[in-house]
Amino acid sequence: MEQFAEILQRIENDIQAIKGQGKVADYIPELAKADPGSFGMCLVTLDGQEFSIGEADQKFSIQSISKVFTLAMVFSHLGEKLWDRVGVEPSGSPFNSLIQLELENGKPRNPFINAGALVVTDILFDLYEDPAKALLDFVQSLLHGSDPIRFNPDVARSEKEEGFRNAALINFMRHYRNISNPVEKVLDLYFRQCSMDMSCRQLAQSFLPFADHGVIPYSGQRILTTSQTKRLNALMQTCGFYDEAGDFSFRVGLPGKSGVGGGIVAVMPQKFAVSVWSPGLNHKGNSMVGMKALEWLTSYSGISIF
Amino acid sequence: MEQFAEILQRIENDIQAIKGQGKVADYIPELAKADPGSFGMCLVTLDGQEFSIGEADQKFSIQSISKVFTLAMVFSHLGEKLWDRVGVEPSGSPFNSLIQLELENGKPRNPFINAGALVVTDILFDLYEDPAKALLDFVQSLLHGSDPIRFNPDVARSEKEEGFRNAALINFMRHYRNISNPVEKVLDLYFRQCSMDMSCRQLAQSFLPFADHGVIPYSGQRILTTSQTKRLNALMQTCGFYDEAGDFSFRVGLPGKSGVGGGIVAVMPQKFAVSVWSPGLNHKGNSMVGMKALEWLTSYSGISIF
Amino acid sequence: MEQFAEILQRIENDIQAIKGQGKVADYIPELAKADPGSFGMCLVTLDGQEFSIGEADQKFSIQSISKVFTLAMVFSHLGEKLWDRVGVEPSGSPFNSLIQLELENGKPRNPFINAGALVVTDILFDLYEDPAKALLDFVQSLLHGSDPIRFNPDVARSEKEEGFRNAALINFMRHYRNISNPVEKVLDLYFRQCSMDMSCRQLAQSFLPFADHGVIPYSGQRILTTSQTKRLNALMQTCGFYDEAGDFSFRVGLPGKSGVGGGIVAVMPQKFAVSVWSPGLNHKGNSMVGMKALEWLTSYSGISIF
Amino acid sequence: MEQFAEILQRIENDIQAIKGQGKVADYIPELAKADPGSFGMCLVTLDGQEFSIGEADQKFSIQSISKVFTLAMVFSHLGEKLWDRVGVEPSGSPFNSLIQLELENGKPRNPFINAGALVVTDILFDLYEDPAKALLDFVQSLLHGSDPIRFNPDVARSEKEEGFRNAALINFMRHYRNISNPVEKVLDLYFRQCSMDMSCRQLAQSFLPFADHGVIPYSGQRILTTSQTKRLNALMQTCGFYDEAGDFSFRVGLPGKSGVGGGIVAVMPQKFAVSVWSPGLNHKGNSMVGMKALEWLTSYSGISIF
Repeated sequence: MEQFAEILQRIENDIQAIKGQGKVADYIPELAKADPGSFGMCLVTLDGQEFSIGEADQKFSIQSISKVFTLAMVFSHLGEKLWDRVGVEPSGSPFNSLIQLELENGKPRNPFINAGALVVTDILFDLYEDPAKALLDFVQSLLHGSDPIRFNPDVARSEKEEGFRNAALINFMRHYRNISNPVEKVLDLYFRQCSMDMSCRQLAQSFLPFADHGVIPYSGQRILTTSQTKRLNALMQTCGFYDEAGDFSFRVGLPGKSGVGGGIVAVMPQKFAVSVWSPGLNHKGNSMVGMKALEWLTSYSGISIF
Repeated sequence: MEQFAEILQRIENDIQAIKGQGKVADYIPELAKADPGSFGMCLVTLDGQEFSIGEADQKFSIQSISKVFTLAMVFSHLGEKLWDRVGVEPSGSPFNSLIQLELENGKPRNPFINAGALVVTDILFDLYEDPAKALLDFVQSLLHGSDPIRFNPDVARSEKEEGFRNAALINFMRHYRNISNPVEKVLDLYFRQCSMDMSCRQLAQSFLPFADHGVIPYSGQRILTTSQTKRLNALMQTCGFYDEAGDFSFRVGLPGKSGVGGGIVAVMPQKFAVSVWSPGLNHKGNSMVGMKALEWLTSYSGISIF
Repeated sequence: MEQFAEILQRIENDIQAIKGQGKVADYIPELAKADPGSFGMCLVTLDGQEFSIGEADQKFSIQSISKVFTLAMVFSHLGEKLWDRVGVEPSGSPFNSLIQLELENGKPRNPFINAGALVVTDILFDLYEDPAKALLDFVQSLLHGSDPIRFNPDVARSEKEEGFRNAALINFMRHYRNISNPVEKVLDLYFRQCSMDMSCRQLAQSFLPFADHGVIPYSGQRILTTSQTKRLNALMQTCGFYDEAGDFSFRVGLPGKSGVGGGIVAVMPQKFAVSVWSPGLNHKGNSMVGMKALEWLTSYSGISIF
Repeated sequence: MEQFAEILQRIENDIQAIKGQGKVADYIPELAKADPGSFGMCLVTLDGQEFSIGEADQKFSIQSISKVFTLAMVFSHLGEKLWDRVGVEPSGSPFNSLIQLELENGKPRNPFINAGALVVTDILFDLYEDPAKALLDFVQSLLHGSDPIRFNPDVARSEKEEGFRNAALINFMRHYRNISNPVEKVLDLYFRQCSMDMSCRQLAQSFLPFADHGVIPYSGQRILTTSQTKRLNALMQTCGFYDEAGDFSFRVGLPGKSGVGGGIVAVMPQKFAVSVWSPGLNHKGNSMVGMKALEWLTSYSGISIF
């Protein structure tokens, strides 16, 4: 296990040459404030060891990574019936999102494109009286520490003010009867879930159940069945990185999920979860330095699902 | 390892209830002759053990599975430069193939859609004096036995007579200068490579290098680097099943490749390769019974990359 | 001129055999109430003669025909600058609306598809303090009689309750900064303009300026220049019938505009304007009997722009 | 009628300021040889008067204008049954050609996009023993003079050598069984028909029947019925200028057809046919100076179908 300590050390050294690369997301003012030179990484093993470098305890906006949490909540309740409303196939290229929604009658390709995540959030309103609280409680339950998880109201408001594209998507799906609750309410929660602030350490901890057949190692509580966990990992593998899922799978070889805040989380089944954060994005919207750090991790360790 | 013998036995029992399901490919007369009730399966481990049920030694048309062989040949020569001419991302839905080619200036999304495979075959003409012979020699070198691999001239001719869609694709890419050799020659070889007849046993053997870091276990010969092997597996995982790659990944959880002849091959890295054959296809063009058999294999064994 | 009296008589006879054909629009309850057997037609010549058959004075929901009025208002103010925000090309097929908006950065193909009409309505808010009143005043000014034009609040509300597709379109264009005013306000006016109730006689009268170089014959008031009138007619010719513009041009040969309420208005430049109404629609959303009546009109009279 | 002499004189003066604008088609070497400064124009009235300016008797490659001739030949034989194999709707934007063919099962949108014209040429083989000769004879029969119409073998060969996109289209339609004859033969004739050399005077003469209810004024021979002529004009109006049909209709207001050789022909029903030629194209592939000359013609004369 010292292996990981050494590898992370090596990554920390290598990262210096490329730190600050990429372009911070600037479509909303709150995200644009991030420092492109920031970098943190944390790897947590199933047996509870934690290895970290950089700003591993600095909180940042998890954005689309939140889609994994809401999916896990909804999947555990609905099981396979969920796939009547959202698919499990990659979406191809970004321009397809709307035409595919149209050609496929308002059923999104997968739960990680925005349209699919909006359907998942819509379902939360059918399952919980207070879905916002339920989501925070769920994420909190995944963590080792007691530091409370919170939405960031400034980020949520900022997202909402610029959220016309998501408003278009949700109205379009409502037209096809694939959204059941009022669009305003669903959009509000969606922008709030994306605004959650978490650190690399927290994210890595929170993804451990996906490396451990669906069980929270800290509490022994089961959040998904073994089969559901396998399927969620398969979904992350094929759809977790927008239209760069193939490239991530190709270069890193681990299931994972990224967010425009610059965070990425990935899991090595039966071994560990790892999170990295650096706000500079490549042109596909994934953390440029983060992708590289994970590529090095699998290269140096020789660990990969393939 | 007796485990596999038992599991295959159980699959053979279970398969009786669904044998004959699906629709045999009938777009060319030669494939339409297949018996939908046929079924074979063979699992070969890295240490040389072979487990088989049904018609595991019956030869059938491997069709698109041949794309993995040509890709391996070309990738080992060109390395990462190959990705200038063909991408590594899933293609989304089938209707996208042509519009994506158009929007992306004739560069196919990945080497497993027909357009991408045609580019790969085109490159064979730049690498070999006699690419047809080179391909047969390559596949033969992967096998344990000496039973000679051959093209099936009836199937190749039948494909060619109905090959207007592939002719459209290759002319379209030639328009974008992504095909260098005469379209007729490339198409001819493409139809021949798809016509190769192999058995489940041969296919499983031939995929062992992808489970073993790129080395042919029978000869110790390396065909790909460890890193290239990982990448080829990642490509099969995300793009190996047409627009059903997500579903296969979701249900089976192994990298693999299917063909409209009803064959499927998959690998469990560091453990085994497995091939299944049953000509009845689902509406996405993948073997219906074969998909189920592999799903049972991973369910019963608990083995999956996730 | 008795010619027209005879021709309309002949059409009235012929129409009996097909009356009631087509399917009444039922996407909102208010429109679904229409009687598919209804039929009216009115032809008004430049020199003031009126020829009518059937329920020519029965009011109905003009729906998309209102797009011609708002376009005329905005075009007369902005002139050619209008085409920076909306195009003048046919849109091809319906499924293209969203992908085209996406590929062309939120600029709709023409002012008669919903997206384009929403941009036009958005501009009304920049031109008038009370655009709803301005629109009613404008339409009233085109008419001979004094019967007041009104919005139908039940229809407008009904449209709004089901208006998720239009909400998607307008949010999408707002994302691309091609909508300047609050989406709710623009949508409200859009649904109100579509809800206007007018009779065939009123519609035919109101379109006379487009047959007369832009001058209202009853008052001598100019609403468009000769050149602008020609261009508006060209737009109706190429884009006035959703994805059936070609077929209407092909069969009828006059510039015109249809609405899902079952109304159609067309003009023969320098000669007349004609309106027809019958609520049963064909599968493209145009009045089935109305299309036929206009086809007969041009066949029997030998009149066509071609 | 002196009116036209004066107007053409005025256009000749005005044209000096923009002569040479646009970009000569260079996708094949033979077309690239054209002099962008060339300009010719000829207007022929129904009563046989001819007005011309510039190089009105200089022959040039008519390219897509030939699609009107083949359409007229086929339409007169098949009548409305033709529309089972090719549509009458505008195609929207160029990128749609292939996806629309795919979504609409190989039926092209209209006979003036390349796919549609290929279907029309395919039909010629069902109608004539020697369709190439039949085409030349047909065009010759439309003309007043006896100067023989010929294919240009250099242009035809040059087109063929670069004709991969058309080869893609025709193979794609053959896949959908919408091409009956061998693709090579159909392509050959298609490239030959596009290579016809004609002058502005000849083109204007040849289009007079479309301004005269389908009758060749020089011989009194009928080539189309009145109704077919109206429909062919409607098709030119809505589909004659690639994805700029709306703009041409909008600015010029006459049915017409353009070619990448820089030629345009338009008709004013019951009055005249007019042809203009200048090889510099705009980015949509239509003659830049030619479009302007026709716009001036309708502006100065006040003549338009609208």
